[in-house]
Amino acid sequence: MRHIFVLIALAGAAHAASPALMPLPVKMEPGPGKLAIDGSFTAGSTGAADARLEAALLRCAADIGRQTGIPMLHPQAADPARATLQASISQAGAEYPTLGEDESYRLDVTPDGARLSAATVDGALRGLATFEQLIVPGADGFQVAAVHIEDRPRFPWRGLMLDVSRHWMPIDVVLRNLDAMATVKLNVFHWHLSDDQGFRVESKRFPKLQEMGSDGHYYTQDQVRQVIEYARLRGIRVVPEFDIPGHTVSWFPGYPELASVPGPFEIGRHWGIYDPVMDPTRESTYRFLDAFIGEMAHLFPDSYFHIGGDEVNGKAWRQNEAIAQFAREHHLDIPNGLQTYFNQRVEKIVEKYGKIMVGWDEIVNPDLPAAAVIQSWRGNAALAKAAADGHRAILSWGYYLDHLSPASYHYGIDPLGGPAAQLSPDEAARILGGEACMWDEYADAETVDSRIWPRMAAIAERFWSPKDVTDVASMYDRLEQVSRRLDFTGIRHRADYAPMLARLAGERPDAPLRTLADACEALGLGGPGSRSRARVYTSLVPLNRLVDAARPESELVRHLEAAATRHSAPDLALLREQFQIWAANDTRFQKLADEDYFLDELRPLSRDLSELGTIGLKVLDDLAQNQPPSPDWLSAQTAELARIAKPQAEVRLAAVRPVKLLLDSFAAGAK
Amino acid sequence: MRHIFVLIALAGAAHAASPALMPLPVKMEPGPGKLAIDGSFTAGSTGAADARLEAALLRCAADIGRQTGIPMLHPQAADPARATLQASISQAGAEYPTLGEDESYRLDVTPDGARLSAATVDGALRGLATFEQLIVPGADGFQVAAVHIEDRPRFPWRGLMLDVSRHWMPIDVVLRNLDAMATVKLNVFHWHLSDDQGFRVESKRFPKLQEMGSDGHYYTQDQVRQVIEYARLRGIRVVPEFDIPGHTVSWFPGYPELASVPGPFEIGRHWGIYDPVMDPTRESTYRFLDAFIGEMAHLFPDSYFHIGGDEVNGKAWRQNEAIAQFAREHHLDIPNGLQTYFNQRVEKIVEKYGKIMVGWDEIVNPDLPAAAVIQSWRGNAALAKAAADGHRAILSWGYYLDHLSPASYHYGIDPLGGPAAQLSPDEAARILGGEACMWDEYADAETVDSRIWPRMAAIAERFWSPKDVTDVASMYDRLEQVSRRLDFTGIRHRADYAPMLARLAGERPDAPLRTLADACEALGLGGPGSRSRARVYTSLVPLNRLVDAARPESELVRHLEAAATRHSAPDLALLREQFQIWAANDTRFQKLADEDYFLDELRPLSRDLSELGTIGLKVLDDLAQNQPPSPDWLSAQTAELARIAKPQAEVRLAAVRPVKLLLDSFAAGAK
Repeated sequence: MRHIFVLIALAGAAHAASPALMPLPVKMEPGPGKLAIDGSFTAGSTGAADARLEAALLRCAADIGRQTGIPMLHPQAADPARATLQASISQAGAEYPTLGEDESYRLDVTPDGARLSAATVDGALRGLATFEQLIVPGADGFQVAAVHIEDRPRFPWRGLMLDVSRHWMPIDVVLRNLDAMATVKLNVFHWHLSDDQGFRVESKRFPKLQEMGSDGHYYTQDQVRQVIEYARLRGIRVVPEFDIPGHTVSWFPGYPELASVPGPFEIGRHWGIYDPVMDPTRESTYRFLDAFIGEMAHLFPDSYFHIGGDEVNGKAWRQNEAIAQFAREHHLDIPNGLQTYFNQRVEKIVEKYGKIMVGWDEIVNPDLPAAAVIQSWRGNAALAKAAADGHRAILSWGYYLDHLSPASYHYGIDPLGGPAAQLSPDEAARILGGEACMWDEYADAETVDSRIWPRMAAIAERFWSPKDVTDVASMYDRLEQVSRRLDFTGIRHRADYAPMLARLAGERPDAPLRTLADACEALGLGGPGSRSRARVYTSLVPLNRLVDAARPESELVRHLEAAATRHSAPDLALLREQFQIWAANDTRFQKLADEDYFLDELRPLSRDLSELGTIGLKVLDDLAQNQPPSPDWLSAQTAELARIAKPQAEVRLAAVRPVKLLLDSFAAGAK
Repeated sequence: MRHIFVLIALAGAAHAASPALMPLPVKMEPGPGKLAIDGSFTAGSTGAADARLEAALLRCAADIGRQTGIPMLHPQAADPARATLQASISQAGAEYPTLGEDESYRLDVTPDGARLSAATVDGALRGLATFEQLIVPGADGFQVAAVHIEDRPRFPWRGLMLDVSRHWMPIDVVLRNLDAMATVKLNVFHWHLSDDQGFRVESKRFPKLQEMGSDGHYYTQDQVRQVIEYARLRGIRVVPEFDIPGHTVSWFPGYPELASVPGPFEIGRHWGIYDPVMDPTRESTYRFLDAFIGEMAHLFPDSYFHIGGDEVNGKAWRQNEAIAQFAREHHLDIPNGLQTYFNQRVEKIVEKYGKIMVGWDEIVNPDLPAAAVIQSWRGNAALAKAAADGHRAILSWGYYLDHLSPASYHYGIDPLGGPAAQLSPDEAARILGGEACMWDEYADAETVDSRIWPRMAAIAERFWSPKDVTDVASMYDRLEQVSRRLDFTGIRHRADYAPMLARLAGERPDAPLRTLADACEALGLGGPGSRSRARVYTSLVPLNRLVDAARPESELVRHLEAAATRHSAPDLALLREQFQIWAANDTRFQKLADEDYFLDELRPLSRDLSELGTIGLKVLDDLAQNQPPSPDWLSAQTAELARIAKPQAEVRLAAVRPVKLLLDSFAAGAK
């Protein structure tokens, strides 16, 4: 991976901004000169004809138009052999992207043009994503530095799971996330379409599913086809999940006869595991599922079909005497034995309709057919075991976006790390890749983008790039640029931040709130101080507070931490300026909060931020004067920082970190 | 207008943010208590049934959901008489909004609910817009302070003209602007659909119009119908304009026989007035226009049809001997007499299809039928003359958004001001209102929103509110809030700012560029230092520089000017903080610019900004020490500020204004 750094150095010397490639390619060699990107840009296909490729070339030109502001009036080359960007594939592509196809590509950029070649259209799509990332403003406009790239993915299954049940995600949210996924070479959209809190697809066979299980918020079958087509054009498979036999409360208002306990039922509104699950002992359940899965298997063209299978607690099965007796008669324990029985029945149905079953960890059982694919959320030991047991498997543990962990945490998780590192080559080959999961208890259409992006891009690099691409500092440098560029895909993780803060401030000048929000990080689900323990949340509680606007990771604080670590003269000046802003902020913030309920809970947080500013300034002053602090003062401040570090109002004051870094280095120096 | 200030004072005392009403209502009386806005919000209609009203109530609930973040799962009241918001109209509304219908409404909000009544559905729509603006965060969540409002518009024609020819505006741009228009009670969307640089509507009768005149960028007739329906639901009339006989170069590639000079022709790419215009002497021209206008008159349901008629220079008519001879034979001078002849012929066609003709100033002529409506762009004298001549007229002079003048300038222009103030009551009644114009030489789909909004809202107040609503400070206070809330309509004037700056900075950390951009204002078309004189622009030149990202008016600078005028202690602290940021900014900016073509032209501007910061800090220091400056220093700085005030890189450094205010008050004190 030495090449990339050479390139960046060269580009810097040539007075152009460095491109932020993510995921990093396998091989990359800089060449002499650069290709100018201007209004004369054209694209054309010179190899096998393929409609997906033609569409992708026009889309690429439109993307370039957006990311450069250059009008692209006639991007289609009259003569493809003279196009600025010439793409060539060996064969007309398959209709739909499929698991394991050749996604490699080769890209050569010279001052005369760019040549992209790939075996398949999906490979060409990955190359186009790279080409777009290479465009930067340079010495006389936008340009691509000359380069030779050879690239291929490490894993064939690189996904994002999106929960659209717990909070409804209109189709626009799905479409823009597909656009963003394509920019970082993800190739599986796992659509979690049903759960206790909502059934989100139109069934023509069982219309009460959406009519009584969705509050009117569901995708029509036409919309589903639209999403599949949109994904297909971007080389992304769509894997539907209908989670059974648990997580099915939203099925029951329309079809209470499916349940293990008597109805009537209402759509789930709170979070957590519900006791009512499907009745696995009645033949009518399987007749229903046969008809339903048949309908959905027809609607979704991908070969894989996800049946969920997680978190069945068995309470309802034990309570229902008929079920309990069935279990006894068939020597099945509750819940595991009974669920295995259910899974075996369901697997036959899924297979009957020509699909391969995918399920969460819990479906693993000696009796499960080897063809079933396991999605591990419980840990990489479970992943390794599934692979050792002969299943193909994908890792989601460590990639739960809704936990709002730092990108560096996810980046450090390797699908072949931990226990999986001990697998034999044959077993390891069964690890297909991974999927990041976005569960939406605490995200809605307005906030979900900021919970997925930009961190998803770092995970995408883990799934695509060579195993030894692990430099966290390089990842963050590039992630910051990728994050900004995502704006042009329509992803709203940055665009929705200001409006949400404006709302909180009643549309008044909100600079003090912005200063506070920039220094905070939102708490996620899971972990100490997790959001689920902070207050009673349901699907009807508005997500309109600071925690919803705040990002999972503060970009500002990351820069300040770097400055506090290096502490060169410009670093110290930067820290001083920021500490002054923090120190002065509380007076203004409290004035703003005098009129506003939403800011009331943030008053102590704002005071703490100003205190951090004051402490930071004192440390800088003492440092400047080379004046050792008293041990008493140091220990008092350390205690104070520990207090401030504790979550409040469901956010953490990330600002504490650079101040602590400074204080600790000071304390170390003082000893 | 005393009432509004009473209300704001009361609301402040009750610890809630003040609502930003724009346009201000005619009458407004605060009541006791407040109505809580939460997840139980419902809306229902209790008067005459009307599908537009029902749709508007659901839309209102969705809007409230967006602007509060509160999920609105079931906003439709099962029993309308118990709805939170009850709307009642006297009669089922007309299918389409029409000129001059009763738009008055009455709104009563109490702690028990809100009652809205109106004669027509369009009146109810205006009341709903008011209700949404009243919602603010309060002491325990979102709320509306109790109030009684009676309101009606001052003028019946309140419009926005959008040029979609010079730069293409995809349908999304149109739709989101209709949403924003509705929030400030505008009721006419004037769609400038053809000009030299593009013909933007599908004609089935003459398909070469769009096929050869649009670069593929045109609205299908289905899309036109979609826009009309979208506008209808929001109480907005759609008035199409096909500008003839000038501004027609884009018609000629497909139909060169319409032109006064021989072809072939190409779509216009540069700006300004083109010589080639239609041939007004050939019967075939009128046969074409008859068929074309017939087709369009059918497509657009509004009774008014705009034929443009501006800026015919007569050169082509003089050059063409047959045309010159026709003029001599008919005793018509060129261009005026000949154009009047043309207009009279066209007026008959427009009338034949049941429409009333609208045209720009130039069509005024003693022989023009009195029914024709005049749109004045040349001045309010022209407006007054048209009205005195018996025409109904609307004012656009003074409302050219593309000049990028301050909101206060437009706000000061009254349709009944200047010469129109001298009109008799009968004549004055012919002034129907006004239209703001957005010509798009220097705006594209990415930047146009920021050229229209928020200033359009101030003009909308001029068109709606009583004549004596003229307090500029109040207007700006409210405009700032309205601007932020516009985010929730989908208008991108704020959202696109950060991505454009990120692009300029190559997606690297762009704080120094942001600091510079916040202190700048974009130059518009017209006026000294106008953009048209800065460089050669065509429709193919990218609009991707700082001038395109910068706003017409700097909100930051306006705040600093206020602070420099008041100079209380907190004001001086605010100024000092900002001056420090400016003074320190250039070092960082130059570093960023080292790698980037787009920033290169901004280097002198950045140096000037830092110099302003330094001068400002010196003035503040001297003020603090009560130390009189030397006259030499004062006069040197005054000269320097005059230099810095001159436009560079097509922007003006607005930051000079607060520094100059401080310096001037210092100089006055020093005397």
